[in-house]
Amino acid sequence: MTITRAWTLKQRPQGVPTHADFELKTLELPPLGEGEVRVANEWLSVDPYMRGRMNDVKSYVPPFQLGEPMDGGAVGRVIESRADGYAEGDLVQHMLGWRDVAQAPAAAFNKLPALGVADHQWLGNLGLTGGTAYWGLLDAAEAKEGETVFVSAAAGAVGSAVVQIAKARGMTVIGSAGGGEKCAWVKELGADAVIDYKAGSIVKGLLAAAPKGIDVYFDNVGGDHLDAALAAARSNARFAICGLIEGYNSAEPMGLRYLARVIAARITIRGFLFPDYMGRMAEFYAEMGPLVASGKVTSRETIHDGIEAMPDAFLGLFTGANTGKMLVRV
Amino acid sequence: MTITRAWTLKQRPQGVPTHADFELKTLELPPLGEGEVRVANEWLSVDPYMRGRMNDVKSYVPPFQLGEPMDGGAVGRVIESRADGYAEGDLVQHMLGWRDVAQAPAAAFNKLPALGVADHQWLGNLGLTGGTAYWGLLDAAEAKEGETVFVSAAAGAVGSAVVQIAKARGMTVIGSAGGGEKCAWVKELGADAVIDYKAGSIVKGLLAAAPKGIDVYFDNVGGDHLDAALAAARSNARFAICGLIEGYNSAEPMGLRYLARVIAARITIRGFLFPDYMGRMAEFYAEMGPLVASGKVTSRETIHDGIEAMPDAFLGLFTGANTGKMLVRV
Repeated sequence: MTITRAWTLKQRPQGVPTHADFELKTLELPPLGEGEVRVANEWLSVDPYMRGRMNDVKSYVPPFQLGEPMDGGAVGRVIESRADGYAEGDLVQHMLGWRDVAQAPAAAFNKLPALGVADHQWLGNLGLTGGTAYWGLLDAAEAKEGETVFVSAAAGAVGSAVVQIAKARGMTVIGSAGGGEKCAWVKELGADAVIDYKAGSIVKGLLAAAPKGIDVYFDNVGGDHLDAALAAARSNARFAICGLIEGYNSAEPMGLRYLARVIAARITIRGFLFPDYMGRMAEFYAEMGPLVASGKVTSRETIHDGIEAMPDAFLGLFTGANTGKMLVRV
Repeated sequence: MTITRAWTLKQRPQGVPTHADFELKTLELPPLGEGEVRVANEWLSVDPYMRGRMNDVKSYVPPFQLGEPMDGGAVGRVIESRADGYAEGDLVQHMLGWRDVAQAPAAAFNKLPALGVADHQWLGNLGLTGGTAYWGLLDAAEAKEGETVFVSAAAGAVGSAVVQIAKARGMTVIGSAGGGEKCAWVKELGADAVIDYKAGSIVKGLLAAAPKGIDVYFDNVGGDHLDAALAAARSNARFAICGLIEGYNSAEPMGLRYLARVIAARITIRGFLFPDYMGRMAEFYAEMGPLVASGKVTSRETIHDGIEAMPDAFLGLFTGANTGKMLVRV
């Protein structure tokens, strides 16, 4: 008999989630069916978008169900297969995270190409994180060589990838991060200027760092940062809206003082989602694979050990506890 | 000696402008120079964007100067010319409004083609108003036949043009307006549904009128209307931001409760300005000329008589005193 330990949603959070919202259950897995694969998860991802799935509202991904296992990005190795093309030991990426053993029809598991990168990168710069950075910057915001890009949460998983991709593409990059240590790291990644949002006004910092304004804003947080970007936008600026972390946990409306600049500066604000670019993964791997393998795009990970630590890792996303990608090593 | 009576900016308003901000001065005009034209204005335009010019801030049009004549859209006839191609009696459109006699180099005056429309239409459906509606709807928002369009301030000058252009192009149109009389007129213009924003929640009204959501939002007001459009947007919806009248007079940030839907619904929000389309006037005249001349696109005007009434007309824009285009007949 095979068992899995899986985190389930015990109750829907009001505002910021807490440990009381999660319950770790031990579940028995049925015998492996024809065409199915069983995977021992090695790396589990926690991401801010999961907060939205804890609410009972229709969105781009369905809400988590009360009492049921949660899911999310994961990387693991096949431990048993009854499917053609999948053999014991194969490395796969899939969405049956928040548990230690995953079992499903083979189509749920993507066999990973040999690009010479560390396994956990498939949840980072070569996964949702890097893909979100890549497509948001280059497609949704149409950022081009020579332009000035502002990235909020630049020490975060997506933000740090945006900084490096933008530099690799010849852009001027201004990042924001909270606190001296994170700011120093963003500078190390190649950012031309870094704003410490804990040390003063974001809008003043941005106007000082980019006296001629910004062409592109990659938004990971919303709120004051979005407002500062509106204030500093040049004509025909493009904003890619990736995350509005200030909005996820709050029932309060987001107040924007500079929204009217959308008209004067002809700003385009565009929301985007990584899954829309699934059909273009080859293009993404072709550019990001070598950048990651060569170390031109690096990453930091904040790693929690053991399935038990998963809620700690997740909750840490909302308190700024991570530098770079937040991961759980099973 | 020729004189002009011109409205000047006496002081910069705090919040909503008042009569105390304006002063009517009588000014002597210098003799007409070589290459110059003198025009007796017949129609003067007041528009919400002028509120922004009363502030001392850099924007897409320079601020009005204290003590100096204000300007804005106007239509008049040449009364004296020292320029080739301009003769007494020629009808011209120009930007030296807020005064009864305008004088400048000929390049400041556009001679108007004979499209068989009433003179004041050059400040309305064939001028800034209609052009803003046309390009905002069809270019900035990329609205297409068969789509569902929401237009705020649909009884306003721009809004009523949007309703009719959208219907002429085969779209489903939902308008919003304040009060039964305005709503009835919007319905008469062809709107499929009208929301009376004074009678209840805009977001509830919009979700009821468009249970499948909206593809396009033409925003003339911002605030609650913009928020409702975010709530009701379908995937890949496009918003053209034309005016944020709720933001013009307020120092308060605009609160948006549904901004996070930009991501889930992949919404594109785009600010635009009519002057950017000056190079495409022929295209605009070719479609709008026949629509206006045939009465397929109609308009209402709220007309104030006499140069003395100009501030009344302008201030009325902010109290909802106009149905359709607000004009002053000199």
